[in-house]
Amino acid sequence: MSQSERDLRWMREALRLAQLGTGATYPNPCVGAVVVKRGRVVGKARSDVTGGDHAEVRALAEAGRAAKGATVYLTLEPCAHRGRTPPCADALVAAEVARVVAAIEDPASHTAGAGLRRLAQAGIEVELGVLAERAREVHRHYLHHVAHGRPFVTLKLAVSVDGRIATAGGDSKWITGEPARRSAHRLRARHHGIAVGAATVLADDPRLDVRLVAGVDPLPVVFDPRLRVASAGRPFNLLRPGVLYLHTARASKRARRALREAGAEGLELPAASSGGVDIDAALAQLGARELRSMMVEGGGRLVGAFVGAGAWQELWLYRAPVVLGEGRPAIAGVGWATVADAPHLEVVRRRKLGVDDLCVYAPVGDPT
Amino acid sequence: MSQSERDLRWMREALRLAQLGTGATYPNPCVGAVVVKRGRVVGKARSDVTGGDHAEVRALAEAGRAAKGATVYLTLEPCAHRGRTPPCADALVAAEVARVVAAIEDPASHTAGAGLRRLAQAGIEVELGVLAERAREVHRHYLHHVAHGRPFVTLKLAVSVDGRIATAGGDSKWITGEPARRSAHRLRARHHGIAVGAATVLADDPRLDVRLVAGVDPLPVVFDPRLRVASAGRPFNLLRPGVLYLHTARASKRARRALREAGAEGLELPAASSGGVDIDAALAQLGARELRSMMVEGGGRLVGAFVGAGAWQELWLYRAPVVLGEGRPAIAGVGWATVADAPHLEVVRRRKLGVDDLCVYAPVGDPT
Repeated sequence: MSQSERDLRWMREALRLAQLGTGATYPNPCVGAVVVKRGRVVGKARSDVTGGDHAEVRALAEAGRAAKGATVYLTLEPCAHRGRTPPCADALVAAEVARVVAAIEDPASHTAGAGLRRLAQAGIEVELGVLAERAREVHRHYLHHVAHGRPFVTLKLAVSVDGRIATAGGDSKWITGEPARRSAHRLRARHHGIAVGAATVLADDPRLDVRLVAGVDPLPVVFDPRLRVASAGRPFNLLRPGVLYLHTARASKRARRALREAGAEGLELPAASSGGVDIDAALAQLGARELRSMMVEGGGRLVGAFVGAGAWQELWLYRAPVVLGEGRPAIAGVGWATVADAPHLEVVRRRKLGVDDLCVYAPVGDPT
Repeated sequence: MSQSERDLRWMREALRLAQLGTGATYPNPCVGAVVVKRGRVVGKARSDVTGGDHAEVRALAEAGRAAKGATVYLTLEPCAHRGRTPPCADALVAAEVARVVAAIEDPASHTAGAGLRRLAQAGIEVELGVLAERAREVHRHYLHHVAHGRPFVTLKLAVSVDGRIATAGGDSKWITGEPARRSAHRLRARHHGIAVGAATVLADDPRLDVRLVAGVDPLPVVFDPRLRVASAGRPFNLLRPGVLYLHTARASKRARRALREAGAEGLELPAASSGGVDIDAALAQLGARELRSMMVEGGGRLVGAFVGAGAWQELWLYRAPVVLGEGRPAIAGVGWATVADAPHLEVVRRRKLGVDDLCVYAPVGDPT
């Protein structure tokens, strides 16, 4: 194997590690690190959960003295700043590694090439750009947030063949089968936040956890302009501490008090012309909290608000072989005069999931 | 190659011929026939257009004297009755073929095994059942009609990712791309009839022809309970001789007269509780005219009426990567209380067509 073949091999492994942990390291990106010496892996790790060590430090710790003279594969440039932990670039220098191969630079202002420069200044051989495209895909949530200051938004829908997410009476259990539901839980675990509209909470009382798979539950965010959930006068799975309610000035004092008493957090935001929470203001606020990614689960009106605002990066559409006819539409409250005016998408991925199918779309020309 | 391998090979060729001509031989099934002698094809044909010779006769004509002692592969048992043409079984006997391999029996009461018996009585070696399952698929329109006296119904929809067939204003040009539209025209050419609702004619003025591909235009059938198209007082592509309008007693005398003046045919049928044409009565009438197959192109209400009546055998769903939001639903006027009550489908086929995708469904447990 040539060196470039070896580089590809170990970078693939580092990317696999990074991908596995995406979503679980809020607010950090999940980096993959592989330490290789004389063709053997002597350490490997991905970023730890919130506040824990970064991938580089964990992989070096596993390698111990063997790190000296080794090559380290990183899916993202090592950080050059002191955050919750010391700069990873310093740790690599201290471990006296011989060579660092990074897939892409970390565009965050506190690093942006400074990590790699520090390595080079210490005499470490540095190579950048191995499997860069794949790394941009693996780190797309993080990169989008750094570029735009807003979470990467993934819309998720489970629809019938005729695009319905529930019957007219609101029943939606279960449109898709077990493999599709497991896939959707894995998708939840990859995100920092998960948003639903108040109507969905009132109708379905969801938990929004990742119980079908291993992983970290994302932060539940309820778009509830008038705080209807808190004022409904009954318990809900999402009326509890650790849930963020986005509302407008129209939420009553009584509702705000009820929300506080339940221990949930409320955040007042400007209203859109529809009366809903302004989507762009919401994303700006969430982005300021370093929520790198958010999944939007529905209902149709909330998804429609994101589509109408052009505020989404991926649409994961699970389609089940069932006809619902008159029922709840997947995307509501938004429309276009002609087909030519309507948002055109491109297919990113297709997959069969049991009897269902999954199609992942992105907006055409999205600059994410 | 063993004899059974040879049999499979030539039957496949016969089935290919049959498949190509499906739809073009109203009211006959399109049979494929291959005449093989000493490992060489000496004649092959599929059924001719209406009133022409059957496949067997055409293939034997091509073989000429070489037919004597040959093996003939037929996708369907040869007919034993005199219709527009003499019985094909007699033609095979007269040609002194040595062996006839048929995929399946013709269940029509005038044949139902009599064709093969006549061959056996004449000393011809007969084999039945080669690639029978595939032949049942190729001849499914015909077999459904023979079994039920009603056309095989194929629903066709071109939808956005959210299951819309047009914007709220009615624009639907073009949801799907060229490859999907060509596929839909090929599908039209495979059917004897093609149905639309009056609203679709009034809004889109379709031609319902197969201009994008080679083939025979199917019989246009307009479901128009009150004959609104004829009474609209303006010209339409489908207001002409050769188009069948199905209406109810509520069609006015004026509208009936306008329809007659346009040269189109009207047929009064019972009304369903919705006020629309009763679907089962319509299919019984169309079946009596030996329409073996009918495609239903929409709009949403007509498709919904067929779905509600459980009167369909296949759903061809073309899906384009576009979001339409509030718009015309694919399947309207019918619904179910719960997902569990709603009709569950099975996927028969999936295909990519340019940026679009096609998924073919059948009702779960359909006994076609």
